[in-house]
Amino acid sequence: MHFKAAVLNRVGEPLTIDTLEMADPGPGDVLVRLRASGLCHTDLEVMQGSLAYPLPIVLGHEGAGIVEAVGRDVKAVKPGDHVICSWNPHCGHCFYCERQLPILCEPFTQNQPRGLLLDGTTRMTRNGERVHHYSVTSTHAEFTMVPESGAVRIPEGIGFDLACIIGCGVMTGIGAVVRKAKVEAGASVAVIGCGPVGLNAIQGARLVDAGRIIAIDLDAGRRDRALEFGATDVIDAKAVDAAEAVKVLTNGRGADYVFECAGNRAAFRLSVEAVRPGGHVVWLGKVNVNEEVGFRWGSLMGEKEIVRSSYGGAEPRRDFPWIVEEHLAGRVKLAELVTNRIALDDINAGFAAMTRGEGIRTVVMLP
Amino acid sequence: MHFKAAVLNRVGEPLTIDTLEMADPGPGDVLVRLRASGLCHTDLEVMQGSLAYPLPIVLGHEGAGIVEAVGRDVKAVKPGDHVICSWNPHCGHCFYCERQLPILCEPFTQNQPRGLLLDGTTRMTRNGERVHHYSVTSTHAEFTMVPESGAVRIPEGIGFDLACIIGCGVMTGIGAVVRKAKVEAGASVAVIGCGPVGLNAIQGARLVDAGRIIAIDLDAGRRDRALEFGATDVIDAKAVDAAEAVKVLTNGRGADYVFECAGNRAAFRLSVEAVRPGGHVVWLGKVNVNEEVGFRWGSLMGEKEIVRSSYGGAEPRRDFPWIVEEHLAGRVKLAELVTNRIALDDINAGFAAMTRGEGIRTVVMLP
Repeated sequence: MHFKAAVLNRVGEPLTIDTLEMADPGPGDVLVRLRASGLCHTDLEVMQGSLAYPLPIVLGHEGAGIVEAVGRDVKAVKPGDHVICSWNPHCGHCFYCERQLPILCEPFTQNQPRGLLLDGTTRMTRNGERVHHYSVTSTHAEFTMVPESGAVRIPEGIGFDLACIIGCGVMTGIGAVVRKAKVEAGASVAVIGCGPVGLNAIQGARLVDAGRIIAIDLDAGRRDRALEFGATDVIDAKAVDAAEAVKVLTNGRGADYVFECAGNRAAFRLSVEAVRPGGHVVWLGKVNVNEEVGFRWGSLMGEKEIVRSSYGGAEPRRDFPWIVEEHLAGRVKLAELVTNRIALDDINAGFAAMTRGEGIRTVVMLP
Repeated sequence: MHFKAAVLNRVGEPLTIDTLEMADPGPGDVLVRLRASGLCHTDLEVMQGSLAYPLPIVLGHEGAGIVEAVGRDVKAVKPGDHVICSWNPHCGHCFYCERQLPILCEPFTQNQPRGLLLDGTTRMTRNGERVHHYSVTSTHAEFTMVPESGAVRIPEGIGFDLACIIGCGVMTGIGAVVRKAKVEAGASVAVIGCGPVGLNAIQGARLVDAGRIIAIDLDAGRRDRALEFGATDVIDAKAVDAAEAVKVLTNGRGADYVFECAGNRAAFRLSVEAVRPGGHVVWLGKVNVNEEVGFRWGSLMGEKEIVRSSYGGAEPRRDFPWIVEEHLAGRVKLAELVTNRIALDDINAGFAAMTRGEGIRTVVMLP
């Protein structure tokens, strides 16, 4: 079958909207007719070359849509089901899957960086030329082919424009609090960086009835949004010593949990200073893999703990339907996150607006 | 009462063996007649000034002996009981004690650095001049006064020369594996630095039936000892890339657990490189509190975790008697650790030998 997709052909060049050919579903494949796809900074990193992938490639890893067809072995979904794509499909039986760490699934971590599906192959071509899959999802397109565990059935009743962003940013922020750190009711939480992931960490903290929820950001607009998403206090890290300000708000001790969602060395350092002795730090942000990160030795003393997470401890088939239900019950904000909706043909303009920092999330709407 | 003790009067000067006066036990105090006291590097740090304490002070924090007298409120021990002193007595009812983190007990962390008992006072004088308690233990002496939770009753049948070292180095190494990280049977373990704490981490790993136990040290003699204590493999970090060598021994993944027992920046860095994705790093070593420590950002990726521990998750009243029983049953080596026994009058020579790296542990034998 033929379908339209946004293709990255060369680093630094605009995406081209091309007609591609999709192979028939293999035994474990799910063909999804996409209805919405979120633009994410990780896409931009690939376009700009700071994250290297084989080209040509169809970007996009936050997609929602309707199952169009399934391979003969697929049991979890059927045509007509509403699904969110998970960028972390997993085999279920490797070393890490057996240890409940699907994010480290070996077929996933081996094939994903090579632009391949879990079986090490591709399904898309353009005039006979192979086109790569981005993070086993490739959602900036009318259709995508994903492994069974990458098509997660969700309840109907939620718009695809809102559902799609659950696939990455919402899951990562809420999951970091609820699944990875398992924050308990009444605990104090500090969130460094109030972009899309940070806002979701904040609403995750509110979901589990955390006590003080302290949002730290350099930008006044983002601090205001943090309050709308459930922060009880905000700190301007430009104006004050943020670690000291967190201590003042937590009986002099520091926060029980700190979520780093900014992705820079100052934020990593601050996270360790701002957590209390015996407290837990989760690093969600990213810098270049070869960059040195560090902190003052004394700031880690007192039985502190740092853990790195890249998907917030997500188990998508457990968590996506749960987040949808929480949204439908009015406890998770999604509409407030989606500030721009565009057509696939306008995707380059969408990324340009993202680069300028306009709005929170931009979603490509598909027919 | 009067008793002999080794007193540090000035940084950089030898200890003096003086006669001190001890006050009568307060309501919660336990007077211990010490029979053995281990020399530890932390004592040396105070003598050399890299760890600042008020002076004069009686050093020593690994003591074992017999209860001589108790205050009127003391219930856990009685005169004649054999005890090991814990350098982490705790109040049992502060913010951290309520969270099962006795090592962070607030009366402890507030008073210990000031050379005081948990109630903020001292019991020792020298010709009317106040003498400070080191880490609420001050065991380089014929007698010491400790809070009830600092005198931990143990089974009889173990020599005091062996019992005393359970109080710090043995507890920290075994505890890091068994209590803090809770290493499971079959897991792979790497230990960086095979000094007294590292050797005990190794025998802790053997106790819980870990799988591969990989010892990393620059010194051939220490690597040999590591094998005697239960290491299955040794790595010379001077000769090979130690992180790569650990991976070769662990199916290419890295160790499930890494215990850093060396206390230098290269060891901290190596610990993060050598652990597998999803694995756990425990930092036991120390550098100056204001020193910068760090690692390559990419080395932490993959859901890795770092936790700092200073006493291996010890709960001394649970753990000291248990370690004694394990020793009496032949499952914990202690005699092999105590290589030098000296009299209190020879303590300066003992520290000089420690500085030269002679033997493993030196113990002061008391009458």
